[in-house]
Amino acid sequence: MDKKVVVIGGGTGNFTILQGLKTKNLQLSAIVSMADDGGSTGILRDELGVLPPGDVRQCLVALSQSSDLMRSLMNYRFDNGGLGGHSFGNLLLSALEKVTGSFEKAVDEMGRILAIRGRVIPVTTHHVRLYMVLKDQTVLRGEREIYLSQAIDQGYSSLFLDPNPVANPAAIDEILSADLLVVGPGGLYTSLIPNFLVEGVSDAIKASKAKKVFIVNLMNKTGQTTGYTTSDYLNEMAKYIGEDVFDHILVNSGIPDDDVMQKYSSEGELVINDLKEQRVVSADFLGQVQSKVRGDLMSRSLIRHSSQKLSEELEKLVTHI
Amino acid sequence: MDKKVVVIGGGTGNFTILQGLKTKNLQLSAIVSMADDGGSTGILRDELGVLPPGDVRQCLVALSQSSDLMRSLMNYRFDNGGLGGHSFGNLLLSALEKVTGSFEKAVDEMGRILAIRGRVIPVTTHHVRLYMVLKDQTVLRGEREIYLSQAIDQGYSSLFLDPNPVANPAAIDEILSADLLVVGPGGLYTSLIPNFLVEGVSDAIKASKAKKVFIVNLMNKTGQTTGYTTSDYLNEMAKYIGEDVFDHILVNSGIPDDDVMQKYSSEGELVINDLKEQRVVSADFLGQVQSKVRGDLMSRSLIRHSSQKLSEELEKLVTHI
Repeated sequence: MDKKVVVIGGGTGNFTILQGLKTKNLQLSAIVSMADDGGSTGILRDELGVLPPGDVRQCLVALSQSSDLMRSLMNYRFDNGGLGGHSFGNLLLSALEKVTGSFEKAVDEMGRILAIRGRVIPVTTHHVRLYMVLKDQTVLRGEREIYLSQAIDQGYSSLFLDPNPVANPAAIDEILSADLLVVGPGGLYTSLIPNFLVEGVSDAIKASKAKKVFIVNLMNKTGQTTGYTTSDYLNEMAKYIGEDVFDHILVNSGIPDDDVMQKYSSEGELVINDLKEQRVVSADFLGQVQSKVRGDLMSRSLIRHSSQKLSEELEKLVTHI
Repeated sequence: MDKKVVVIGGGTGNFTILQGLKTKNLQLSAIVSMADDGGSTGILRDELGVLPPGDVRQCLVALSQSSDLMRSLMNYRFDNGGLGGHSFGNLLLSALEKVTGSFEKAVDEMGRILAIRGRVIPVTTHHVRLYMVLKDQTVLRGEREIYLSQAIDQGYSSLFLDPNPVANPAAIDEILSADLLVVGPGGLYTSLIPNFLVEGVSDAIKASKAKKVFIVNLMNKTGQTTGYTTSDYLNEMAKYIGEDVFDHILVNSGIPDDDVMQKYSSEGELVINDLKEQRVVSADFLGQVQSKVRGDLMSRSLIRHSSQKLSEELEKLVTHI
């Protein structure tokens, strides 16, 4: 029986890992945050009352074994008129939700259409919104607003989902039956922690016998995680999970070229690793810089992890369990 | 080798025949008019510059052997916001056209996704608009405007496509290699004749050794074909094809219930058959009246042909060739 790897997150980070892991002999599941409310996803939530399709779509495409054409189709964005900005895959998922009457059925059906390897599971099927209250009492309403804020590094007093959601039982099952649980990379406050805020998830993570891996982001985001070290990331997550659960921590030691760093100097700086513990696996996990980005998936940063290097490291970890 | 049946038209009429014919052991092709510019299709043409997806979508769904869910999905219409009014299948076809760069490739790909039996072929791949100039010099611009006009029965001086398009070579090949060519039922000026206006199509119909069948509409449309008899339909088509080419003419002899007729009295009256020739096949071709319509495909009239009765008659005709 193949070992089961369960990836928890949402957004672009998941895409990178899943794309690598699908080439390995592993059982794969992706548990996806339901807090996204930006762009095409936000419009669909508001206008159609559907659950957020964007992050789920990215995971489905990452796990797809169908043709390049099908994957390009799913990431295709209409550029004009009333459809402007919508990615086709988001529309497919939302239409399927309307026709089947269930977001989970829609995800499964789209998985079949895309011939995915593994499963994609929404962390909750409740309609939620993410809120963050900053130290200065500013209330940030919605994942998008938090994602775009440059004022989080002043500190915050609370981060919560409203209404308070219960976990999707399928997500809990996957966490409990995993051999390896992978968290990150991804936006700490917008993609990772929103999963731990769902009732039942943190308890399941603590109860799971799986080895737990955290993949540290390559870069901090200015105004959000300015100056965060590896232990800052771990401490922040421990606040919501209840303890520091990670058995392995993958830290990048590669240094991007100067000209690339220069370009990104306003967006953030490299995360510094301040831990010397044995659970830290430090290696060059950098991917090749691509000038041509594929669809919109990789457009957020050209400094990114290598799918291949990460998945090889994760395969090594899970094989030794 | 199965006999080849090629259906020429566009719109709801095609749907009825193809859905019946796909259950028979026949090679099937649907040649579809490219003049549609109403509703969702019109918006996509204007905003995205794509070829009209609506009629092609209906044919693909009619020929689909995939699940009920997939067929419902393709006919699902978004009902809100910027997406309001668009059918999902139209969006799929338009996104595929954008991603592949070709409407024909898009149609083939959607045919694969829907597991269709047979082929769907646009009559031309040129972007065209249908014009009609009425006797009183009113110019009707576009298929939709013609479809909605109540003033056509005053007579018209011209009907043409602009720019003047050349036929899709694949459509010509199908017409020339057919055993049975089927025209109708469908809007005479909006779904049938627009095919004959495409350069090469009428010549191919005349040159084809196929037996040619015309299926006469059940009802005339008030203000459009008011009072038209079978021979009026034939004469109108002969103007554009160049001669009366039909070997068989299927005429309905069934009478709908009084209460149904009452409901439709403002929309039109039954077509009267004025021909007593041997090529006329007169029988009850009425379908069952359904109060619940399926998607938007059948919503235009509850008095309609029976898929099954028509396809059985066509099968009989093609078997005796």
